[in-house]
Parts: sequence; C-alpha cells; structure tokens
Amino acid sequence: VGTLHLVLAESALELVPEELWSHPAVAKSARARNKRPGELLLEDTFHHSAMRAAAKKNQFPGLERRGRPDIIHLCLLVALESRLNHEGSLRCWVHTRNDETIEVDPEIRLQRAQHRFNGLMEQLLLQGEVPPGAEKPLLRVHSETSLADAVKRTGARQIVLFDENGEDENVLDESLTADGQDQDLAVLIGGFPTGPLTSDLSGLSHKTIRLGSRPLTAWTVASEILVRYHQAARR
Amino acid sequence: VGTLHLVLAESALELVPEELWSHPAVAKSARARNKRPGELLLEDTFHHSAMRAAAKKNQFPGLERRGRPDIIHLCLLVALESRLNHEGSLRCWVHTRNDETIEVDPEIRLQRAQHRFNGLMEQLLLQGEVPPGAEKPLLRVHSETSLADAVKRTGARQIVLFDENGEDENVLDESLTADGQDQDLAVLIGGFPTGPLTSDLSGLSHKTIRLGSRPLTAWTVASEILVRYHQAARR
Repeated sequence: VGTLHLVLAESALELVPEELWSHPAVAKSARARNKRPGELLLEDTFHHSAMRAAAKKNQFPGLERRGRPDIIHLCLLVALESRLNHEGSLRCWVHTRNDETIEVDPEIRLQRAQHRFNGLMEQLLLQGEVPPGAEKPLLRVHSETSLADAVKRTGARQIVLFDENGEDENVLDESLTADGQDQDLAVLIGGFPTGPLTSDLSGLSHKTIRLGSRPLTAWTVASEILVRYHQAARR
Repeated sequence: VGTLHLVLAESALELVPEELWSHPAVAKSARARNKRPGELLLEDTFHHSAMRAAAKKNQFPGLERRGRPDIIHLCLLVALESRLNHEGSLRCWVHTRNDETIEVDPEIRLQRAQHRFNGLMEQLLLQGEVPPGAEKPLLRVHSETSLADAVKRTGARQIVLFDENGEDENVLDESLTADGQDQDLAVLIGGFPTGPLTSDLSGLSHKTIRLGSRPLTAWTVASEILVRYHQAARR
C-alpha cells in the first residue's frame, strides 16, 4: 500500500514580521513573554490590531490569511492521531506562506495546549529543527522552497489539490480505491482560513477537487481524506 | 434521512472543585485572571500539580480523566465544521463527569482560541446557558442528569458506544447504510483521555464497538464516524 502525504499549503504560520515589531500590541506580548518581537509567533488572536494597522498602510498583504497557527495545530492533531498515521501510512508536511517546508516525523507527540504548540513553532522557525542538533529531528524546516518543491519532496506521483473551484469529488473516488493506493498520493490543503491557493503549480500534473458546495475548514478536508483513504485501504 | 447525535460522555470538563481551591497553582491562576478559584475551568495544563497533590490525599479521584477541556474543544470544532453539520444532520451533546448535559446549537460558531473557549465554558457552567437569558441559547446546561438521561434526551433509537472492549467495527457498517439512517443514531464517545466509560447503560439497548486495535483519541473516533456516516448518506 502507498503512503498518503498531507501537505498543508501556504500555511498561516510565521514569526512576527518586522513591520509589526513597534506596534503596542506586539510590544506588549513580547514583554509578557520576555522575548523579542521577532521571536514571537504571529497570532491573530493577540496581534490582530497590529496586523490591521499595518494592512491599512499597505505593509501587510494577506491580512485574512496570516497568524493562524491554531489551524495548523488542529490539522496536525487530527492527522497525527488518525488511524492512517497509527498504521504508518501517512506523512505530514507544512508548507508556509514564507515558503518554508516543515517535515513532520510521524512519531511526534504534539502538545495539546495551543500556547505550548506555539512555543514549539517559535523554536522551530528560529532554529530550523526540533530538538536542535538531533540526528533525526521530530520537526525540520527546509528553507527557500516553494509549494511545488514541497510536493516534489514527498515523491508522490498522484497529486490532488483541494479548492472550492475544483471538480466534483466523484473524481476522487478512483484515487481512493485500493488500486489507486499502489502509488503515493499527495493531497494539498490550504493551511489558512479562506480563499484559493496562489502558488504556481503549473509544472505539476494534478487534479483539483472540491468537496461539496460550501467552504470547509482545513481540518474538515483533512479528516475527510484521512478517513476515506483509510476506509478504501480497509476494503 | 435521520440525524446523527454525537454524545461526548463523562467529559473532562468542570470548574475547579473545592478540594483544590487553596493550592498555590490554583490561587495563582485565579489571581492572574481576577476570578475566584471556583469560577475557573479545571485545566490539567495549569492545575496538574494541584490535581496530583489532592489525588495523593485521596481527595481527587480520576486524576487522568479530568481537566481536559481541550479534548471537548477539539471534538466540537471537528463536529461543528463537518459536512454533516453543514447539512443539518448532526446534533452535539456534551455530558460531563459531573452529570451535566450540555446541548449545543448546531449553528454556534465556537472560538478557535483555547483560552476563549475555556472562558465560554466557565460562563456556561456558572450560568447554565450562553448567552444568558436568550430565548434560544447557543449552549444550555441540563443539570442532574446521567449519561443514560443524556442519550434519552437525543431521542435516538439506535445507540452505539465506542470502547476499546467492543465488537469489531464491521458491525458498524449496517448502522451506516442509507437504510440504517432512517432512524436517528446516537454515538457515545468518551470525552476524556483514556480508559472505559463507567456510567450505567444497562437500561439502554445499545451496541459497543471498537475501531481498530489501538486506543484512539475522542476526536479521531468522532471524525471517523462523522465522515463515514456522511459518506453512507451520499451513496
């Protein structure tokens, strides 16, 4: 049986960018955590006023798609605790909007508390791997990549992108049959709240599929695919 | 088509009990939030030392199964954002280990940040409903119930309990066929980290089922059922 590669694409995961360092909301959260602003993870829940102020000055593109580590946390908790992962048939990758690609060890046991997960992501984005210096790190950042590079890194031959403007999901069923699972499958899901992917995937042969007629959260798409892929393998 | 009732059972959701009020870790978090200890949600991540100290004095049974609102939060985010809920075929109920039953409006938009969700749960457990005094509250507590009462409240005729000691999941398939969906189905999932349910369900006709051979998190079981039930309805 092949492996399913879950790729969270253009994920809303980044350290606070320099344009926001001097804003009072950022300075306050840096002081509270005894860190420099650039060492903090950008969090919409705490830094929204800073993000909005910078956006008004045209210094912060993509206001609605940044600072949402909770989405990545939730998707990874859903994926890493899935039956597919327990059975060794899943790999998770987090591609960020800054074009880093995070490789996730399937054995990692992620913190459940958001503030602890966010602390881990700060450490990871600053140091490039967690734990630092380990022979086989649990999380590792590959820098200066692109979404297409991230997908190539998986080695998967079948690529499916989930997007509201895709084809009907019936097309999906063949990729999820036991036969289809002979080859690795990479599924790309936007790791942000809303809107389409903007990366250039023209060099990669792929299908684009929509699930149902309403916008779905990233973890809803992830759990749909994880369960259906696992069910197909069971049959 | 019938409705799926997701019942989180004996959930690890409660206010800090009196036995812990005087512990320094609890006093500290109460001061930090400018609340009384009994107005705080019990959180293992902040109150673990207090929980362990009380457990050593035999004043805190169930140490491993309490103070985990993150599990309820995650299950509800998975359920409320599911396709089944978008299509109006899901109801969520949270039965707590103190035998309250929380009725969840399917239209509620839950906070994504854990600390905000926890604040909402504090308000709910203190006041009995959220928002207070609303004609149709988004969350409502039914007190002095039992798990069996909670299940009866759903009105479902088919009842399936998920437990590591249950029957093989193939039994489940018939409940998930389109035919089986003529009648409402209640699925009971433990809303805590580990171990079996302890409630008396002997008065209720039900099946007990296990998914696979490994322990699964509550949200893994929930997403498995939500996706499979929705797929069966689609066929």
